Amino acid sequence: MSAHYVLTLGCPDRTGIVARIAAFLSDAGGWITEAAYHADPDTNWFFTRQVVRADSLSFGLEELRDRFATLAAELGADADWRVSDTAQPGRVVILVSKEGHCLYDLLGRYAGNDLPMEVRAVIGNHKDLESITAAHGIPFHYVPFPGPGEDKTASFEEVRRLVDAEDPDAIVLAKFMQIVPDWLCERWAGRAINIHHSFLPSFVGGRPYHQAAERGVKLVGATCHYVTAELDAGPIIEQDVIRVDHSDAVTDMVLKGRDIEKVVLARGLRWHLEDRVLVHGNKTVVFH
Amino acid sequence: MSAHYVLTLGCPDRTGIVARIAAFLSDAGGWITEAAYHADPDTNWFFTRQVVRADSLSFGLEELRDRFATLAAELGADADWRVSDTAQPGRVVILVSKEGHCLYDLLGRYAGNDLPMEVRAVIGNHKDLESITAAHGIPFHYVPFPGPGEDKTASFEEVRRLVDAEDPDAIVLAKFMQIVPDWLCERWAGRAINIHHSFLPSFVGGRPYHQAAERGVKLVGATCHYVTAELDAGPIIEQDVIRVDHSDAVTDMVLKGRDIEKVVLARGLRWHLEDRVLVHGNKTVVFH
Amino acid sequence: MSAHYVLTLGCPDRTGIVARIAAFLSDAGGWITEAAYHADPDTNWFFTRQVVRADSLSFGLEELRDRFATLAAELGADADWRVSDTAQPGRVVILVSKEGHCLYDLLGRYAGNDLPMEVRAVIGNHKDLESITAAHGIPFHYVPFPGPGEDKTASFEEVRRLVDAEDPDAIVLAKFMQIVPDWLCERWAGRAINIHHSFLPSFVGGRPYHQAAERGVKLVGATCHYVTAELDAGPIIEQDVIRVDHSDAVTDMVLKGRDIEKVVLARGLRWHLEDRVLVHGNKTVVFH
Amino acid sequence: MSAHYVLTLGCPDRTGIVARIAAFLSDAGGWITEAAYHADPDTNWFFTRQVVRADSLSFGLEELRDRFATLAAELGADADWRVSDTAQPGRVVILVSKEGHCLYDLLGRYAGNDLPMEVRAVIGNHKDLESITAAHGIPFHYVPFPGPGEDKTASFEEVRRLVDAEDPDAIVLAKFMQIVPDWLCERWAGRAINIHHSFLPSFVGGRPYHQAAERGVKLVGATCHYVTAELDAGPIIEQDVIRVDHSDAVTDMVLKGRDIEKVVLARGLRWHLEDRVLVHGNKTVVFH
Repeated sequence: MSAHYVLTLGCPDRTGIVARIAAFLSDAGGWITEAAYHADPDTNWFFTRQVVRADSLSFGLEELRDRFATLAAELGADADWRVSDTAQPGRVVILVSKEGHCLYDLLGRYAGNDLPMEVRAVIGNHKDLESITAAHGIPFHYVPFPGPGEDKTASFEEVRRLVDAEDPDAIVLAKFMQIVPDWLCERWAGRAINIHHSFLPSFVGGRPYHQAAERGVKLVGATCHYVTAELDAGPIIEQDVIRVDHSDAVTDMVLKGRDIEKVVLARGLRWHLEDRVLVHGNKTVVFH
Repeated sequence: MSAHYVLTLGCPDRTGIVARIAAFLSDAGGWITEAAYHADPDTNWFFTRQVVRADSLSFGLEELRDRFATLAAELGADADWRVSDTAQPGRVVILVSKEGHCLYDLLGRYAGNDLPMEVRAVIGNHKDLESITAAHGIPFHYVPFPGPGEDKTASFEEVRRLVDAEDPDAIVLAKFMQIVPDWLCERWAGRAINIHHSFLPSFVGGRPYHQAAERGVKLVGATCHYVTAELDAGPIIEQDVIRVDHSDAVTDMVLKGRDIEKVVLARGLRWHLEDRVLVHGNKTVVFH
Repeated sequence: MSAHYVLTLGCPDRTGIVARIAAFLSDAGGWITEAAYHADPDTNWFFTRQVVRADSLSFGLEELRDRFATLAAELGADADWRVSDTAQPGRVVILVSKEGHCLYDLLGRYAGNDLPMEVRAVIGNHKDLESITAAHGIPFHYVPFPGPGEDKTASFEEVRRLVDAEDPDAIVLAKFMQIVPDWLCERWAGRAINIHHSFLPSFVGGRPYHQAAERGVKLVGATCHYVTAELDAGPIIEQDVIRVDHSDAVTDMVLKGRDIEKVVLARGLRWHLEDRVLVHGNKTVVFH
Repeated sequence: MSAHYVLTLGCPDRTGIVARIAAFLSDAGGWITEAAYHADPDTNWFFTRQVVRADSLSFGLEELRDRFATLAAELGADADWRVSDTAQPGRVVILVSKEGHCLYDLLGRYAGNDLPMEVRAVIGNHKDLESITAAHGIPFHYVPFPGPGEDKTASFEEVRRLVDAEDPDAIVLAKFMQIVPDWLCERWAGRAINIHHSFLPSFVGGRPYHQAAERGVKLVGATCHYVTAELDAGPIIEQDVIRVDHSDAVTDMVLKGRDIEKVVLARGLRWHLEDRVLVHGNKTVVFH
């Protein structure tokens, strides 16, 4: 597939924005292959994502970025815009613990070239997933964490150092099972993606399948969301559910839920990497 | 379809129950067309639902009931058993307010003979749905309710009188929008079925679609459950969800959600009427 | 909701179309509330749907239509464009036979104001659904049809006369169960919508649930499509499925399938009425 | 989890079978943890699956098998019965070609102990998936195949030799992309499981996603089925679908479809390994 540039922008809504952006691209000779818009009537905010063929423009990525920055400023977008190049796969770091289903799934997709990403490193607070990571030729960093109630700052600082060294576009918490401290949530805002094994806002926090079994629900779910300081309350990117019934013990729910966790995380990550997700307050606009 | 008898039972689990019940039916010449079992390891409780051809037995419904009562007592089932006749459609009373989509749906199914029920009456605290009820030849009772904050006891007493006069197998709250008082929940325990427009336990109480929009969820749901004193917390019979996205305003969610509310209520009611639902604590076993 | 104008267009793809259309609307002061685009790389065809607030334009519907006609011609759209007014509900005629679930569903939605339509008439080749139609205050026309193998031309001619008298935007075959002759398919091209009770292209033609049961499939489906001369082969608007298993006899599949038929037809009809469906060859672009 | 024995049986239906089997297990002291029945009215055939706790019996697996064989014979089950031990994971051989998503998925589940199986070998007609197989410590056998039109008998004979050497309970065609000859279908009858990337019976044979795109369907599917001599026509174990739309090119359908192929294959394989699938003619009874 030939290279494309992806432009996204969020700004106050008013008449003529679509025309301004379209004219901007048209004047540059841009061949638009995808264009999506959304106007939120509640907040009066406008969102767009445009994809143009790189070879249709008479100039390169940096020039496009400069020009679009000017337009974005005029439209009042502040920092809320982005231009990326589909020829540059997103840089990804994955955080794991012991449970491997999400990592195995992501690595399988990586091996099959199914996601536009380069996995730079996997970081684990246990060594269980070191060998499969190595089998894929990816560096694995083991960062031991102290037990419950002890100060985890040093461990998180080490994780931060390892993550930031890769300058990642996405930090994926693939069943990391550690609550990220506020200062790190803030630092990674808009880039740290978590998979929670419930249909949020149901069953926030620990042992959601146990909570689900206790309540007797007929579906269990999974939620992919951006990590924010408030636990399991960040902007939701994607959710899905799978049917369970009275015959499913918690262990069965865990097993069935994994299939949903894997696809929900993979979809959320894909959309993030393809710049399809625009965050607005605590909600997302997902152009898919 | 020839008539069948449906036997359900819940009792403490132990070795040999299946054999006892099977032998009981076999000795009576019972031709079993459906048989389902469930053993709950957490509570060590046993559940079964059996369907036999009425014409395979050498005796009638009352005799079967008497004999099964004896067996149930031996198995420690107390009152937790039931024998019903599929030739006898369930007696149903429907409670409504202004919103008609669930009533229209149930009446459409009734007209098409899709549910094993006889709708005895519709009771509304508004008159909006009187004419469609009348068009189906069903009595409509208008029971005005006082406004918020006022004492609704007299109105609920009148509803109770009208409902109980029909001796219903199911009392369906089809968007009734009134919180049933504890004394009435208790009276109708195991027979009053509500449809709540969220995927419980998310978004309990009022305006769940507004809550869903506020949280930015990617699916909205509906839950059919038995009415209990604690609001929206009764045993769940059925749930389902439908996809929404950022472009769906609350009004769109309401519209999409209706399609889920209708089918979830209809499924839950069907299973209740077919004696497929066994309540155990605050959870259900649904043999479908 | 305030009135909006909906503009749709399909034309050969080339650079600058988005800008042209955006500028056209912007110059007219148009406040765009929805905008969707699609470029089909296989056929090199471009599709768009735009929604503008009626009160943002300094002129009316006819003037907008005139101006857009000129633009469409310049873009090579020929007749493949449309401007409609959301304040004008679509005119709908429904064709039925004996089976009522789709009609009941549509009338329930009509009563609840859930679809942007005015049901002008219901035409049946049996009288079974006359009374429910009358209960909704809609004219019912009974047009008897000869049996299999006999010439049905006169009956179809009478149906055509009754339909065309209403100048409908949509002719809905809601379980009509008669194969529409080619001349009538052609006359109603792009307006006649059928619901077929299978996941097409599986199980074309008669008794699809019997075919499904015979094959032992684990899901049954429904397909809403435009009627064309080739049976069950027209452009697909919407499809969905529902799970079945070995315990479902054909009669159970019929029952479960109805729930899917109803929602698939309602969704397809909604999208057609909201001008979200653009036909291209034997496929559809659906902007939802 | 403690060990359980799983008993399955299919035989002509008649009164008293349930009682016979239940008494058989009860007399042996069997603690039943799961029991499922199905009676097919069309063929008048009876099916059951029972699970008993191994430690509840006073004798072992061989004795149970002997006794059950006698009962099965009395019930006319011929060879259509089976007793297995959940403590013995199923022996599995996987056949692959170049495409790895299903293999990666199965190996991930294997690593996570999610499926009751022991993967004995992977056989490929290309070497692409050798290293991931080796990373899981599983033998990989490369069996080159001649091109289209040439005689593949020798290659299939070699595959057969390698497969049969493992005496597998399941032979999984995980995107094997070679049409298995009749003699091998027969040899592996009831054990060879294929994943086909369409919702059968739609789009039999090659390039189903191309066929799907051509037809303009709104959902694409996957089907897990037993391999039989007639291509893609064997008994269906499981199917599922995923939504696509006009914006999905064939390559997008391939990508989306993979997620369905993986879960459908994994579910089908699980049910096969757990002895939940009983084949009857060209259909399956799946007790889940």
